[in-house]
Amino acid sequence: MPGSGKSVASRVGESLGMKVVLMGDFVRDEASQRNQDPGKVALDLRKEYGEFVVAERCVKMIKTSENQDKNVKSANSSLYLIEGIRSPYEVEIFKQEFKDFKVIAVHSKPKTRFKRLKRRRRSDDSPLVSDLQIRDQRELKFGIGEVIANSDYVVINEGGLKKLKDKLRSILKNEMQNRS
Amino acid sequence: MPGSGKSVASRVGESLGMKVVLMGDFVRDEASQRNQDPGKVALDLRKEYGEFVVAERCVKMIKTSENQDKNVKSANSSLYLIEGIRSPYEVEIFKQEFKDFKVIAVHSKPKTRFKRLKRRRRSDDSPLVSDLQIRDQRELKFGIGEVIANSDYVVINEGGLKKLKDKLRSILKNEMQNRS
Repeated sequence: MPGSGKSVASRVGESLGMKVVLMGDFVRDEASQRNQDPGKVALDLRKEYGEFVVAERCVKMIKTSENQDKNVKSANSSLYLIEGIRSPYEVEIFKQEFKDFKVIAVHSKPKTRFKRLKRRRRSDDSPLVSDLQIRDQRELKFGIGEVIANSDYVVINEGGLKKLKDKLRSILKNEMQNRS
Repeated sequence: MPGSGKSVASRVGESLGMKVVLMGDFVRDEASQRNQDPGKVALDLRKEYGEFVVAERCVKMIKTSENQDKNVKSANSSLYLIEGIRSPYEVEIFKQEFKDFKVIAVHSKPKTRFKRLKRRRRSDDSPLVSDLQIRDQRELKFGIGEVIANSDYVVINEGGLKKLKDKLRSILKNEMQNRS
């Protein structure tokens, strides 16, 4: 959910040698090509190409990258962290394609998320609560709640950045060990 | 979600002097009157009386009980724990009716939940994974994912009963202090 702190997971993953794929990048690229709002494009893309479109592009990108890396000897070269999964359709695709796929959800209570989002935008116009609720509703419509309900890990982000990083590092390290 | 361990929250609440309301009881009562499966009745009730029906009966019950208790002096007499909220419509009703209403979600990964549910039923016929998936789907259709995504607390239940009870006790005690 917006403001929960999920981008921290990517930074921690990166610091551990994982490759990070931002699902939002596919949407932002397309949005800048179309010169439209990313939120709108996220919806339009799915209408045009189906629910699986962003996940499929993501899988294609990972497979290409894996092929390029085939000759590189590195313990972590085939470990990917995908940031920004929002729908159970996407989870389904990734599970089919990658057998060790796991879902980590980062959770903060609405009050905390709203506070963070307001702070984050303090240089712009202060966003209305209703704007934030619209963002929430968009993500919930994708089915993000279902993804969280069935996630393999939920990391609570209410106790500051260090605590969050520690928890994420411990989960990621553990998962990395299980497959090396 | 089924098998996550939410009933432990009720037991902890009760031990702290809270009054526990089981939303499932309304459904089970109705099911036994109709002589039908509770899962089916949960759906039918909402079709017949709307999404809010179980929550509304619950609110009515609490208000009646509060009126009866009005003359009883007890610090915790007006603290209720409602077990089994499944849809954002229900959350909406409770938020309207009770200003200090908070949502606590109990989360376990699907693998853990399935293991528990199988163990729980070992005296009956062992349930098929597909049965468990049907139960999951039913709860997700009510919107339980959205409730979890926007919950005030998520308690992770992967580390044994004692750990779960400690976490729940700490949250409930804290909430009780804030309103006494």
